[in-house]
Amino acid sequence: CLNNGFFFHSLLCVCVCVCVCLGSNYAMSNGGGGGGASSSTHLLDLLEEPIPGVGTYDDFHTIDWVREKCKDRERHRKINSKKKESAWEFTKSLYDAWSGWLVVTLTGLASAADWLNDLKEGVCLSAMWFNHEQCCWDSNETTFAERDKCPQWKTWAELILGQAEGPGSYIMNYFMFTFWALSFAFLAVSLVKVFAPYACGSGIPEIKTILSGFIIRGYLGKWTLMIKTITLVLAVASGLSLGKEGPLVHVACCCGNIFSYLFPKYSKNEAKKREVLSAASAAGVSVAFGAPIGGVLFSLEEVSYYFPLKTLWRSFFAALVAAFVLRSINPFGNSRLVLFYVEYHTPWYLFELFPFILLGVFGGLWGAFFIRANIAWCRRRKSTRFGKYPVLEVITVAAITAIVAFPNPYTRQNTSELIKELFTDCGPLESSQLCQYRSQMNGSQAYPAGSDAAATPGVYSAMWQLSLALIFKIIMTIFTFGLKVPSGLFIPSMAIGAIAGRIVGIAVEQLAYYHHDWFLFREWCEVGADCITPGLYAMVGAAACLGGVTRMTVSLVVIVFELTGGLEYIVPLMAAVMTSKWVGDAFGREGIYEAHIRLNGYPFLDAKEEFTHTTLAREVMRPRRNDLPLAVLTQDDMTLAELQNIISQTSCNGFPVIVSKESQRLVGFALRRDITIAIENARRKQEGIMLNSRVYFTQHAPTLPADSPRPLKLRSILDMSPFTVTDHTPMEIVVDIFRKLGLRQCLVTHNGRLLGIITKKDILRHMAQMANQDPESIMFN
Amino acid sequence: CLNNGFFFHSLLCVCVCVCVCLGSNYAMSNGGGGGGASSSTHLLDLLEEPIPGVGTYDDFHTIDWVREKCKDRERHRKINSKKKESAWEFTKSLYDAWSGWLVVTLTGLASAADWLNDLKEGVCLSAMWFNHEQCCWDSNETTFAERDKCPQWKTWAELILGQAEGPGSYIMNYFMFTFWALSFAFLAVSLVKVFAPYACGSGIPEIKTILSGFIIRGYLGKWTLMIKTITLVLAVASGLSLGKEGPLVHVACCCGNIFSYLFPKYSKNEAKKREVLSAASAAGVSVAFGAPIGGVLFSLEEVSYYFPLKTLWRSFFAALVAAFVLRSINPFGNSRLVLFYVEYHTPWYLFELFPFILLGVFGGLWGAFFIRANIAWCRRRKSTRFGKYPVLEVITVAAITAIVAFPNPYTRQNTSELIKELFTDCGPLESSQLCQYRSQMNGSQAYPAGSDAAATPGVYSAMWQLSLALIFKIIMTIFTFGLKVPSGLFIPSMAIGAIAGRIVGIAVEQLAYYHHDWFLFREWCEVGADCITPGLYAMVGAAACLGGVTRMTVSLVVIVFELTGGLEYIVPLMAAVMTSKWVGDAFGREGIYEAHIRLNGYPFLDAKEEFTHTTLAREVMRPRRNDLPLAVLTQDDMTLAELQNIISQTSCNGFPVIVSKESQRLVGFALRRDITIAIENARRKQEGIMLNSRVYFTQHAPTLPADSPRPLKLRSILDMSPFTVTDHTPMEIVVDIFRKLGLRQCLVTHNGRLLGIITKKDILRHMAQMANQDPESIMFN
Repeated sequence: CLNNGFFFHSLLCVCVCVCVCLGSNYAMSNGGGGGGASSSTHLLDLLEEPIPGVGTYDDFHTIDWVREKCKDRERHRKINSKKKESAWEFTKSLYDAWSGWLVVTLTGLASAADWLNDLKEGVCLSAMWFNHEQCCWDSNETTFAERDKCPQWKTWAELILGQAEGPGSYIMNYFMFTFWALSFAFLAVSLVKVFAPYACGSGIPEIKTILSGFIIRGYLGKWTLMIKTITLVLAVASGLSLGKEGPLVHVACCCGNIFSYLFPKYSKNEAKKREVLSAASAAGVSVAFGAPIGGVLFSLEEVSYYFPLKTLWRSFFAALVAAFVLRSINPFGNSRLVLFYVEYHTPWYLFELFPFILLGVFGGLWGAFFIRANIAWCRRRKSTRFGKYPVLEVITVAAITAIVAFPNPYTRQNTSELIKELFTDCGPLESSQLCQYRSQMNGSQAYPAGSDAAATPGVYSAMWQLSLALIFKIIMTIFTFGLKVPSGLFIPSMAIGAIAGRIVGIAVEQLAYYHHDWFLFREWCEVGADCITPGLYAMVGAAACLGGVTRMTVSLVVIVFELTGGLEYIVPLMAAVMTSKWVGDAFGREGIYEAHIRLNGYPFLDAKEEFTHTTLAREVMRPRRNDLPLAVLTQDDMTLAELQNIISQTSCNGFPVIVSKESQRLVGFALRRDITIAIENARRKQEGIMLNSRVYFTQHAPTLPADSPRPLKLRSILDMSPFTVTDHTPMEIVVDIFRKLGLRQCLVTHNGRLLGIITKKDILRHMAQMANQDPESIMFN
Repeated sequence: CLNNGFFFHSLLCVCVCVCVCLGSNYAMSNGGGGGGASSSTHLLDLLEEPIPGVGTYDDFHTIDWVREKCKDRERHRKINSKKKESAWEFTKSLYDAWSGWLVVTLTGLASAADWLNDLKEGVCLSAMWFNHEQCCWDSNETTFAERDKCPQWKTWAELILGQAEGPGSYIMNYFMFTFWALSFAFLAVSLVKVFAPYACGSGIPEIKTILSGFIIRGYLGKWTLMIKTITLVLAVASGLSLGKEGPLVHVACCCGNIFSYLFPKYSKNEAKKREVLSAASAAGVSVAFGAPIGGVLFSLEEVSYYFPLKTLWRSFFAALVAAFVLRSINPFGNSRLVLFYVEYHTPWYLFELFPFILLGVFGGLWGAFFIRANIAWCRRRKSTRFGKYPVLEVITVAAITAIVAFPNPYTRQNTSELIKELFTDCGPLESSQLCQYRSQMNGSQAYPAGSDAAATPGVYSAMWQLSLALIFKIIMTIFTFGLKVPSGLFIPSMAIGAIAGRIVGIAVEQLAYYHHDWFLFREWCEVGADCITPGLYAMVGAAACLGGVTRMTVSLVVIVFELTGGLEYIVPLMAAVMTSKWVGDAFGREGIYEAHIRLNGYPFLDAKEEFTHTTLAREVMRPRRNDLPLAVLTQDDMTLAELQNIISQTSCNGFPVIVSKESQRLVGFALRRDITIAIENARRKQEGIMLNSRVYFTQHAPTLPADSPRPLKLRSILDMSPFTVTDHTPMEIVVDIFRKLGLRQCLVTHNGRLLGIITKKDILRHMAQMANQDPESIMFN
């Protein structure tokens, strides 16, 4: 335990080294594989030239899952035919192990964040980088009761003024607390603003959008990773009402994305890359909470869009490795994986379901209120001049937070520690103010083991302070989430729920203590028995509030269940979480992440939302009634000039190819980007390509007059299996197809003739229109 | 605790009553809704007559998920426009509560099964229906150590011969044991054979097939439910090597199916019905193991095919209610939900991963071996004359099982109890032979708390008996799974793994005890410390063996984790389960349920298996090169005689409708069953329909000569949005579409012209062909 801080740091370095070594190793072994693949491509070159750049995507475009998956299977088959099955399988399975290892680097964060956080209150003289707890661990001079005080640890007042008590030292501590908070907040927001604007926020809305098949270049890049890691530590240390769990998922996804560049299999295929990102988000939650199964379910329920069962196992494995490494590091010093390990020993009673459901209602109301208030504030920030000064805003919020937070011990302390304290059941060894009960037996102040007891004024003053902390947290969280610093929602939401739950729990406990002959308590709560566990109420409240905000259900229960080891308390948790979800859904079906996605206009086609309107495909497709006719290409009677003309005059991302203008029968689909690249490539490499060259998409060149220039064959970029639906297809089926297959566009036919096209954007616009929203807020191509 | 047996039974009755009351209540409230719907249908009748019977399915047909979902949305919209949103939402949410309540009935099984099981050994004089444990609960005359012996409980030897000891009484007990086993087995197999042939086996392969969209009439009917419930109790009591967990899932699905008939929303829509079945299977596992989250994941990973997130919440809720009821009943008397609750207090060490992974390898090998051996035996039963005598076979197996099992205490006892004993860590109070350790400190026989100890000869003889039990279980399980009685695999597999794990655990423990200065143990295992927990090894072994057989991963870890409350042991469990899966997959990728599906030729398109071949749609579609041309209908120039001619000459389940023979452009798709029903209906209701009546699928009737009879409009049965793919579409995409959208058939076009058709059967045949299997073994229409 002695040099735990050192241990973390050295381990972090070791891990990084291991990663790099493994990485180079892999790059080498994969280089071989890649070489094999490229030589096989070379052979194919002679038959049909693959054009470099074809099949990639521009920034802010959506990907075509079907095409990406086909590409991957093709690549897989090529390698399979070259190499022995087993060797490649071995490499592939090793890769999985690898992507799990990445998350190791994240675990260092927790200790670093703790260290900086305590810097606001004081400093450890023996070793600057130890936090308060680590600093005092080694001290033999303190008794158990006074374990928080040790000579090595100096508050700022002691260090600067040389005195520990008195109004002067209080003001000094207050000043230094605010000073450090402002410094950290300023540093964080400046770093984000200058180096990586994508590093702000929780990142989960964007990751959801990316996983649904959208390209945001740089969002998961190395700069984002570095700056987010550093600023997350600073932001948590600044005392703002934010958590590190959401950003850790973003950081994990950055790692996954960066390391995927080492392997051509993943770097060259956007769909495969998203498999890695799914697993990375599972590993992120696994590390953030120490909840591996909860992480897998979080990835399944909340983040992942396109989650084949194979990825379930990958995620499971990534979470396994992450959990294993976390256990080896033992960051919480209790040989548990989890952040808030508690053990309750008393069962719960049927009557208690009533307060639990009440907490669920509170969670749902809080969630609905928070989402509305936060979105309204963020919209204001987006639309008014106010959003132009992010640094000023962060500093203002940080200053208010620090100034209001210091006087109240429950807001001064680290939020994670607050949650831990609220979750913990009172016992004889607990010195917290919340546990100052008076035993009826002997009238002592000590907490009596195994029975309920009367609260002393200490408990009542703690409840007052907790109520104030609750109001403070509720207000500050609304203004904090959405600031231009890394900010997660899990910890603040859980803190709010835990405070409310603890208050309710103490109230019920005292009610049962003083009125144990009421009909409600008479049956099961005898005098002197330990009937009510206020810590359990805090846990249930935390789950309910988190559920209200995020609208997760199964994954949330599993995370809290793993967090607390409370196997018997699944039913109360489930009841509270379901109630919270129902109450929240009554005020609006969107969770906070979906609301932010809509606010930012990301093209996210929600898999959970049902499309319930009766429109048909022909009402949604373009061209609409009064539009220009659809820009189409014919398969063999256009010249290069005509083709370039069509491309330059329209802004479509792709063009259907038809047999002829007369028959309108569909042959295939060609993407704008691919056509442009192919023409450039042909001009550069092939001779005799002129503006009046004939362009053809058929297998054989059309018969041309003798004096015509060399024709240009574009069959290789033609998608000959475009998805089609008839004009009578109900939109609910079309939406289903888009969701389940991950399409980018779909062609509409009537009796075999091409009528129009439906893109993902058309669908999102149509859905916005149906919900009476502005269809032009969606931002993509 | 006194009359626990009574309590179960009376509660069972109460539940049944509650169910019936609720049922009628719902039927009434739904009758109102149904009335509203039907009156709205009546209004539509005037415009376009819906034909009764159209849109239903024949036995052994596959359902069309897309059509079913559309039908449901249509119905939903109709009701929504009639009723206020909230009222229906309320009814709908109440329905969920209802479907969860069903599973209540299942919980009575456990106690009943226990009672019959103990009847083989003796009888409780004070109350016949008490099992051994319940009988002795109330007895004050026995000390703790001798709690198994009480005057009320008489073995058969005591009762009949009047003596408890001696060779005569042993033979008497042996005889009665075998007698009861044979009686129960005979009764079980006869009931199954006479009343409900579908009640045999575990039912999970069939439920997987049904959930993937196949109709098996009667498989989830009331007879199956009743007979399976009764015979499951008998089969478990007969001592055969089988468990009740798989059949409980089948029973839960039967309940779900039967109760879904009360609600037109579910009874009339095959897709919605499958949502209920998904939730029911989750509730089944939730009750069988007391593992609600594990149940939801089991449903997700193993059983459900088409699992939208909405169903995840439904399943979660069903599992919540089931868990809540289970807790209220408190069947295991320890205020825990679970069957095998254990608490370990020692952490595990890194070195121990080695034996854990070894257990994983054992589990994988056992799984692969079991699947091959069991499938070979079942194929033999199917193909030879041997399968004609199921009663004889069951009696033979039961007789061998009983005769071999009785002499060994570990095979004589109930398998669930055996697993519980193997999982439980030795403590000072444990009287089992497995815990006869000798403390080094004082040389006493008692088990020393908190330290490893030397095993006495008692432990070694127990290990001998366990090894024999292992071999016995392995052999008998192979011959038992597939008998014509209800038989689950979970308990036997877990027992095999637990035995192997306990043996390994004791071996490692003794190794650590005698060689604690080895480099492997020196670091962490001090003399006198409690380093190794053999019970944990049993748990890991059980998970590994179950994983090897079923190839589950995430759900299995969660089930075992919930079963045992072993939060800290997730990493060992994950490591063993993943190893087991990898080792098993090396010998064949199919789990036991998939293997049985293939053996029975069910049309199951596995969502996990990847299609890796490069074939195109045109190679799979019918008509093949030398086949007759595709039977098609034209939209407006056929007579009724021509139509009937086509229907009678072909056996296709549906016909594409085209514009004309010349253009071959596709208009829609009409199902054979719908056409037949529509024609019959028209003949009955419309006058003037003759054989030379013109049949048309267009909006307006074609212009006909003046003397022609009244034409027949069939547009209402025409599916105007058939799915089409082009002939160049790779089969991997086609397979993906079939899986994800749940299609029944798909039309193939080339440049807008109809070429052919691909049905689910064609795909399954093609896949079988590609895997060098007999394509004709698939059994459906």
